[in-house]
Amino acid sequence: MFEQQLRVPGPTPLPSRVLRSQSRPMIDHRGPEFAALIDDLVAGFRWALRTDNDVLLFPSSGTGGLEAAAVNLLSPGERTLFCTMGAFGDRWANIGAAYRADVVRLSASPGEAIDPEDVDRILAEHSDIATVFVTHNETSTGVVNDLPAIAAVVKGRGKLLCVDSVSAAGCMPLDTDQLGIDVLVTGSQKGWMAPPGVAIVAVNRAAFEHAAKASCPRFYFDFAREKKYQDRHQTFTTPPVSVFYALQEGLAIMREEGLEAVWARHSRIAKLIREGVTAIGLRLLAVEGHRSDTVTAILSPTESAEQLKEFRAHLRTTYGLVLAGGQGELDGKIFRIGHLGMIDDADAYAILALLEQGLVDMGLRSRVGLATAAAQAAARGAPVAEPAAVG
Amino acid sequence: MFEQQLRVPGPTPLPSRVLRSQSRPMIDHRGPEFAALIDDLVAGFRWALRTDNDVLLFPSSGTGGLEAAAVNLLSPGERTLFCTMGAFGDRWANIGAAYRADVVRLSASPGEAIDPEDVDRILAEHSDIATVFVTHNETSTGVVNDLPAIAAVVKGRGKLLCVDSVSAAGCMPLDTDQLGIDVLVTGSQKGWMAPPGVAIVAVNRAAFEHAAKASCPRFYFDFAREKKYQDRHQTFTTPPVSVFYALQEGLAIMREEGLEAVWARHSRIAKLIREGVTAIGLRLLAVEGHRSDTVTAILSPTESAEQLKEFRAHLRTTYGLVLAGGQGELDGKIFRIGHLGMIDDADAYAILALLEQGLVDMGLRSRVGLATAAAQAAARGAPVAEPAAVG
Repeated sequence: MFEQQLRVPGPTPLPSRVLRSQSRPMIDHRGPEFAALIDDLVAGFRWALRTDNDVLLFPSSGTGGLEAAAVNLLSPGERTLFCTMGAFGDRWANIGAAYRADVVRLSASPGEAIDPEDVDRILAEHSDIATVFVTHNETSTGVVNDLPAIAAVVKGRGKLLCVDSVSAAGCMPLDTDQLGIDVLVTGSQKGWMAPPGVAIVAVNRAAFEHAAKASCPRFYFDFAREKKYQDRHQTFTTPPVSVFYALQEGLAIMREEGLEAVWARHSRIAKLIREGVTAIGLRLLAVEGHRSDTVTAILSPTESAEQLKEFRAHLRTTYGLVLAGGQGELDGKIFRIGHLGMIDDADAYAILALLEQGLVDMGLRSRVGLATAAAQAAARGAPVAEPAAVG
Repeated sequence: MFEQQLRVPGPTPLPSRVLRSQSRPMIDHRGPEFAALIDDLVAGFRWALRTDNDVLLFPSSGTGGLEAAAVNLLSPGERTLFCTMGAFGDRWANIGAAYRADVVRLSASPGEAIDPEDVDRILAEHSDIATVFVTHNETSTGVVNDLPAIAAVVKGRGKLLCVDSVSAAGCMPLDTDQLGIDVLVTGSQKGWMAPPGVAIVAVNRAAFEHAAKASCPRFYFDFAREKKYQDRHQTFTTPPVSVFYALQEGLAIMREEGLEAVWARHSRIAKLIREGVTAIGLRLLAVEGHRSDTVTAILSPTESAEQLKEFRAHLRTTYGLVLAGGQGELDGKIFRIGHLGMIDDADAYAILALLEQGLVDMGLRSRVGLATAAAQAAARGAPVAEPAAVG
């Protein structure tokens, strides 16, 4: 194949404009060219996240952004609620525990979402909890929480709300300020059509004020120091300049499309993918009503974990279709399709057709043409017609 | 000008091969293509750092690498020696303090190096110190320590040695294993001819064993977890793929030149720069015998901090020569020339000529042609001849 269909939930394929943008020469990160660059990025993220808050840019992966939120808001021994529905929610709670917070875990089973009533119940039981950490979209399971409902509960009880929107922001509806999110974390390699390397953390005044009193040790990820530098249109440490270029170009492309159009595209593509995979008898991990617009987790169609690995390797080597496996306890039990960032209907059909070819190659299905037919029908808003193709 | 002469001590100008390398499509960081990439990087860094140790690659700036060393080796309340001779040494000590170590600071005045005898004296006084942190090359002052002498003292007393070689490794002589360095930190944007975004941390077995007992809280920068993933040819969190491409290309270019040739080039260029700037009556901050091969700090030739700022702005806007100012207490008192990574004699002459033009423009000097003449003479290994050019 000429190029892989890279469909893991990040890194995502990059538009050629973004790829090329990284080839610009380096600039001084203490000079005026950089000041204009960071101003443009911050303005872009404020637009895309619908926030007037400070947007801090850390040289790190998304996990670095999660650590930043935890170490700035928490104090050792402090009781804190982490709502988790998979590997990344668990990771955030583990970060809290590593920094000696008294972690209360509200865990949803794999494929299920957090029930806002459970959040309310725990906050009622533990009035000393000051901060709630919650995943917007769990990359490991393809589950999206009802963030507005959770935010309403958390803010209704006057708590601080930290949201991991690494794999949702820029793809799925999100109104940071309207929901009252105090700290929102996302990462450059997801919906932003840029390479990995930058964590984006939107922080409001209440979070800064709380951080000033929080006593977890921190330095690299310290909000206050970073804000001091960003107020001067710099970053505290040397920023990943070429990834900044890519983010600038990715944001420019998003502005051209329009934010709500970007959201609608992700919603449509996710529907095509879901219709396609269910039409060939594959089962989704995520419960109805909480299915992500950026990543779809599919129960393994194979007999064994080993065969699932072979299946993914076959798709990669024969067709250049790169899909993700499961993480942690879901390893060997699911595979995942990332459909975020640079993706359109053409890609959705290609993914589905290649996936189906692989299933037939492996003797896991006997016919072809069902998946794309279902997706095409879904794209027309019509019920699924009898497919014309035969296997 | 067509392109800036970016001569701050990082980010550094990138060879076109490196710039272009970043335009390759993204790959799955859990797949075989990435495994080959990280293996190549690790092999390259082992070659360049002269080490058989694990080389951990963190998505962060160099400061992240400094934090990684501190949080993995230290425990709260533990007495620890930080040897500092400027802003970056201070930063490392501040990280230690932020994580509640009992920090003993051995400070050299700006422009001076650490005296190995002072290190020995402190270690004799405080036998409970287990780990010593020392800067190889202080980017803020252009001072290089006598690292072999310091290492001999530290290892002679059986202590762990952590070295910040962010702005020296890959440019100046360094034999990590022969010196017994337990943790060595460097950063992608310095001598490696790559953009910022990756901290490179070489960690030996003794450091891993010590880290297993050290109790500073850590997660993102945890050595043990990162090693577990890197043993599987992955990184723990999503790596900055395009910066990895750039590092691979930069290392390939270094291999073509040869490591000792790279060191010799940096040594020669540094000499040209020093000869040039001193020939026009500028004074170096660093003491004789400890002058860096990668960055030269020069005492301000202006009356005021404000005028120094104007001078640097004039060089940038008129000639495209971008130099760095001073940091912390040296702000307004010095300026700095970075001469590391992609730099050759042509660049040295260009930097010196443009610098001299700026001085004459500002009325700070009355003649031109002295700086390059002195550098050219130095390049010939000859005493400086009377310059032919007139002002």
